[in-house]
Amino acid sequence: MISDNISINSAGHLCFAGHDTVELAGKYGTPLYLIDEQRVRERCRIYAEAMKNAFGGDSHPLFASKALSFKRIYEIINEEGIGTDIVSPGELYTAVLAGFPMEKAYFHGNNKTDEDIAFAIDSKIGYFVCDNIEELKAINAEAGNRGIRQNILLRITPGIDPHTLEKISTGKVDSKFGAAIETGQAEEITAAALTLPNIRLRGFHCHIGSQIFEFEPFCDAARTMLSFIADIKAKHGYEAEELNLGGGMAVRYKEEHPSISYADNIAQIGALIDSLCKELGINKPTILMEPGRSIVADAGMTLYTAGTLKEIKGFKTYVSIDGGMCDNPRYALYGSPYTVMLANRANDEADCVCTVAGRCCESGDLIQENVALPRPKRGDIVAVLTTGAYNYSMSSNYNRLPRPALVMLDGDRDYVAVRRETYADITRNDV
Amino acid sequence: MISDNISINSAGHLCFAGHDTVELAGKYGTPLYLIDEQRVRERCRIYAEAMKNAFGGDSHPLFASKALSFKRIYEIINEEGIGTDIVSPGELYTAVLAGFPMEKAYFHGNNKTDEDIAFAIDSKIGYFVCDNIEELKAINAEAGNRGIRQNILLRITPGIDPHTLEKISTGKVDSKFGAAIETGQAEEITAAALTLPNIRLRGFHCHIGSQIFEFEPFCDAARTMLSFIADIKAKHGYEAEELNLGGGMAVRYKEEHPSISYADNIAQIGALIDSLCKELGINKPTILMEPGRSIVADAGMTLYTAGTLKEIKGFKTYVSIDGGMCDNPRYALYGSPYTVMLANRANDEADCVCTVAGRCCESGDLIQENVALPRPKRGDIVAVLTTGAYNYSMSSNYNRLPRPALVMLDGDRDYVAVRRETYADITRNDV
Repeated sequence: MISDNISINSAGHLCFAGHDTVELAGKYGTPLYLIDEQRVRERCRIYAEAMKNAFGGDSHPLFASKALSFKRIYEIINEEGIGTDIVSPGELYTAVLAGFPMEKAYFHGNNKTDEDIAFAIDSKIGYFVCDNIEELKAINAEAGNRGIRQNILLRITPGIDPHTLEKISTGKVDSKFGAAIETGQAEEITAAALTLPNIRLRGFHCHIGSQIFEFEPFCDAARTMLSFIADIKAKHGYEAEELNLGGGMAVRYKEEHPSISYADNIAQIGALIDSLCKELGINKPTILMEPGRSIVADAGMTLYTAGTLKEIKGFKTYVSIDGGMCDNPRYALYGSPYTVMLANRANDEADCVCTVAGRCCESGDLIQENVALPRPKRGDIVAVLTTGAYNYSMSSNYNRLPRPALVMLDGDRDYVAVRRETYADITRNDV
Repeated sequence: MISDNISINSAGHLCFAGHDTVELAGKYGTPLYLIDEQRVRERCRIYAEAMKNAFGGDSHPLFASKALSFKRIYEIINEEGIGTDIVSPGELYTAVLAGFPMEKAYFHGNNKTDEDIAFAIDSKIGYFVCDNIEELKAINAEAGNRGIRQNILLRITPGIDPHTLEKISTGKVDSKFGAAIETGQAEEITAAALTLPNIRLRGFHCHIGSQIFEFEPFCDAARTMLSFIADIKAKHGYEAEELNLGGGMAVRYKEEHPSISYADNIAQIGALIDSLCKELGINKPTILMEPGRSIVADAGMTLYTAGTLKEIKGFKTYVSIDGGMCDNPRYALYGSPYTVMLANRANDEADCVCTVAGRCCESGDLIQENVALPRPKRGDIVAVLTTGAYNYSMSSNYNRLPRPALVMLDGDRDYVAVRRETYADITRNDV
């Protein structure tokens, strides 16, 4: 099994977090998102402990909630004592609704509007991760209007190629995010931040990309960012208190993907940071990291009901499901790999190679191609594994399909955290 | 101008359907979807008239509502007297809500669930466009339960390559849709349909793909489908009354795209069909077509507010906007072309080549690259043209961003047809 929260019971049914998925499909209907609450909590603890050990001080993880944002997840993250990174006023609103302590929230994004900035300051946001000079001025102005000094980090582009997909590689010089060191713009925005009266510059942020299996790119990023910190100290007399290394640690979507020890990676980065700080003659900053995908991905599974098996003799075999790119657009967007199983016949021989096709009226609406399954038939329960990240959060109502319910699995208990959309919901704003 | 419903007024503001877009942005906020109601109506009439002239009898267009589905659009389509094609119970629900005469609705899709089929029959759906044998049996069973005989068309894969993008090419033999002629499965499903007591087979449907600029692929499809009809007549003694040639006529997204006369294309297809029917010795069937994109695409425009202009010296220039792949995922999905203008300075010299970047926390969140604009600045209104199709309908709440309002422009009048989502809306189902 790709993940240790997956098993098969004596009925031959796929179990997730100890729950029979066929029973869950019967109880809640399909399509259905499942989230293993204990897995989310374990991952928060692994990151928190590893970061404390490796970096010391107040170093801690922030959950990158764009991977999976709904009210209950912020409650869980808060119960685990870690911070969060939010990227929009909608995520901010949801975190506030959940009673999340906003001083532990960092507001990201390449384009925060003036309204967003005002809303965030009024919500007592802990930090802005400021992207550009205009935004910096807008934050300074809104903070000034309220008579406060606003904590910020500056988003810096370190010019690292993380060897991942182009679309999810964000640390290269030509990124839409942040200010590049290479072009001098990173120093420029730092100098500007230091002059603004209502800004309290706490340090720097970088994010090199997503789904990175090696730890070397993170070491490269740490090296580049600490050198930048030393350089700024030398030139401007300002020493950063915080360094946020972003997220991007990979997740196993398929058996052939390597296993990753997040704790070991962090320990190695920690050792490097210690030696670099000595070498560069700077105080070790508080280190933040922003795991999103690696906190929630394998805490998730999606259940579908199979429609027809379409064998196009001499060409291809499709199995259709009752969801698709509307609830998981990642194969359509990036050709993302997923592991697929038949939940109700998990022990049967996988003798049929098929393409798992969504129900949307679009040829590109596929969930995965060339999947070996026991020959599917109408009514079978199809499980797509490792869907906790960027599935619910990217879901749409394409074809006016309502979004699935999201059910949490917590020990013996299962409970709805996001209700299934109704037809009334999707037409609510139609005049 | 790329479309005749676009102009520039004396203030140098971009006008759409005669309305000053800068005023609309001020009145309704951004991001904002605009739909030119009269353009939608004109296109319906062009198709209806051209099809009546070219094909005679009851031949008529069905609006492929997956391109743009909300309550008001079904009212407009109905007022224009044409039918609709719906692809899900959500679209069906919306059409019913709008009082659409359901006998003129065709239910499409590669995977209708048993619940969908029951819901559609109970809503007095005119036709199912039946995709496969299991679905055929399910429709027969549900119709039998209600003591009716259900009209259907069968979706046939004609094996035509329409020379468009792979992801939107649907008529090839290995499509997830329909039954292929080449493999004998089309004949098989026809024979099955003719034996089922609660099914009334009215004819056949095919759809070869999207964004097709030439009319020859449609002629090829007509030729293949009429030969199939003749073949079925010879072998099974059944002669189709209806032939639905699907949709797919292209739309100009950029100045360099050729203009298309839908009426001329249809006239040429009509002439071909007349001669083929004589040649093949079959009665001319009622012809249906399913324009979606070409009815609504250039009836649409999206307005955004610009954030920062980010010039990465020696690399690239970005202008950020207050929307992105959440309201228009088509560049992220397909690299789709769009024309972009600065609405508030539409006459200024376009001296700045930039990438229009969305506000989502994702590098691939771009709306268009290498766009020449007057050097944008924070607060400018950015107009993306020809967004009527597959923008609102594909929109998501990625990054928990609320979906824009959709405003109709009708002569002097502008009115909200879909209200802007609120933060309360997007968290409504969070428990």
